[in-house]
Amino acid sequence: MKLASLKRGRDGQLLVVSRDLARATDASHVVPTLQAALDDWDAAAPRLQEIADALEAGRIAHLAFDPKKCAAPLPRAFQWADGSAYVNHVELLRKARGAEMPASFWSDPLMYQGGSDAFLGPTDPIEVVDEAYGIDFEAEVAMILGDVAMAAGREQAARAIRLIVLVNDVSLRNLIAAELAKGFGFFHAKPSSAFSPVAVTPDELGHAFDGAKLALGGPGRPVAEGGLGYSCIAERRMVETIRFGKPQTEFLKFGDRVRIEMPDADGRSIFGAIDQKVARYAPRGK
Amino acid sequence: MKLASLKRGRDGQLLVVSRDLARATDASHVVPTLQAALDDWDAAAPRLQEIADALEAGRIAHLAFDPKKCAAPLPRAFQWADGSAYVNHVELLRKARGAEMPASFWSDPLMYQGGSDAFLGPTDPIEVVDEAYGIDFEAEVAMILGDVAMAAGREQAARAIRLIVLVNDVSLRNLIAAELAKGFGFFHAKPSSAFSPVAVTPDELGHAFDGAKLALGGPGRPVAEGGLGYSCIAERRMVETIRFGKPQTEFLKFGDRVRIEMPDADGRSIFGAIDQKVARYAPRGK
Repeated sequence: MKLASLKRGRDGQLLVVSRDLARATDASHVVPTLQAALDDWDAAAPRLQEIADALEAGRIAHLAFDPKKCAAPLPRAFQWADGSAYVNHVELLRKARGAEMPASFWSDPLMYQGGSDAFLGPTDPIEVVDEAYGIDFEAEVAMILGDVAMAAGREQAARAIRLIVLVNDVSLRNLIAAELAKGFGFFHAKPSSAFSPVAVTPDELGHAFDGAKLALGGPGRPVAEGGLGYSCIAERRMVETIRFGKPQTEFLKFGDRVRIEMPDADGRSIFGAIDQKVARYAPRGK
Repeated sequence: MKLASLKRGRDGQLLVVSRDLARATDASHVVPTLQAALDDWDAAAPRLQEIADALEAGRIAHLAFDPKKCAAPLPRAFQWADGSAYVNHVELLRKARGAEMPASFWSDPLMYQGGSDAFLGPTDPIEVVDEAYGIDFEAEVAMILGDVAMAAGREQAARAIRLIVLVNDVSLRNLIAAELAKGFGFFHAKPSSAFSPVAVTPDELGHAFDGAKLALGGPGRPVAEGGLGYSCIAERRMVETIRFGKPQTEFLKFGDRVRIEMPDADGRSIFGAIDQKVARYAPRGK
């Protein structure tokens, strides 16, 4: 099934969305929010699946699904851990910062805890104070988990996967070097992430999901060489630096648009599109 | 007023506690959880204050307050940012790791985002897989904030302070160097933090709170020199290394007890005591 959150209050209002993303039906009479569903997933999931089946069969009242009215499926969360599963991305970005990548990164996962108190909806603007911060996107896949015990093994963690979403991990590249030099990881350099309109259960992904990892993407390669391009500007700039001596693609400017979407093998959008404009942030309050 | 959360469900059940920490009364008929109170603080706070006033005056049914039945005031939170306000602590710890402290640390705050999905209650055990991880405590003061807009200034942030708590920022010292060397900050080296039994509003602190900072502590100094000792073992070990050539105090062992409490100027406990035993963690699930 596919779930979304209508913008409402701090945690949204739970919707069940049709597989083709055309229709949606309110599920908040069963479970008010996606967080509440996750907190009691074994009870909530079968009831939400019934709604999804009824929606798919046209047996239930529904409205057109409008991603513009959506918050992130989880508008805020109790944990947000961002890992680097594509180590080639890390290697390129470190090269771009003039930093070495330790060999252990190929076996020991690189992961940080980020802000999870204010996620952006799929069409919310990317608001930044200053273009000079080096505004970039990163297209990522995220898993929404149930409870994972401390020291869980791989199988135990994989069994906790409840839902899968796309993410725009907004990054302020020109703040990263100074921030990481302090030794405590990212803070200002990773502002609020944005999420796809819907979160999907693993069964929606068929063979593309192996039980632990989604395989509908791969390392970046130039389009001219048969690749699909890059999932962030920093990576492209690094490749340009290696090839041409300096980066040629600029970071995002106010007014630029970022669109992130993942089609299935038949070309149909799985998660809906993250579609954001970059905008100047006007400080609020005093 | 002073607020606590009885262990119940994932977010606890809200209690109002008397100033002397002897009595408590259920507040969940007004606001079910502390998170719900924070989400609508302007509406919740006056109603909770009425209960606190009635409890103080003995005009309301109550029970003896039992910290052993308490979760952390916020059993989980949407954000947990840990900053180093006492730069001398950072300087000592860095020396202990053989790392330099950049001069900018004296003006540019050092802060990281940590795990906030599973905080420990005041008397919950500190469960660790292996003593060899170098188990340590850090006694800290934390502020629970309302909404803070991006790019807020100092005054704006100070006005968002809702409650103050004590924290045991459990640290696994022997995991830190390797983890920080990866460049993305702490993860395994900072397991769940524990919190004091009650969270208090700033007015409970009188002149000890200047509107932004609580001044009832100070840099560590040996007891023999008129100081109050240290708020973590690592700092003491560093001082021992400087004085005697090597550390003499061992990190915590299974069975050891950590007690963290802050008295007011008259010697009365403000927040109640964090009082935890260190225990071997038995992995759960498979």
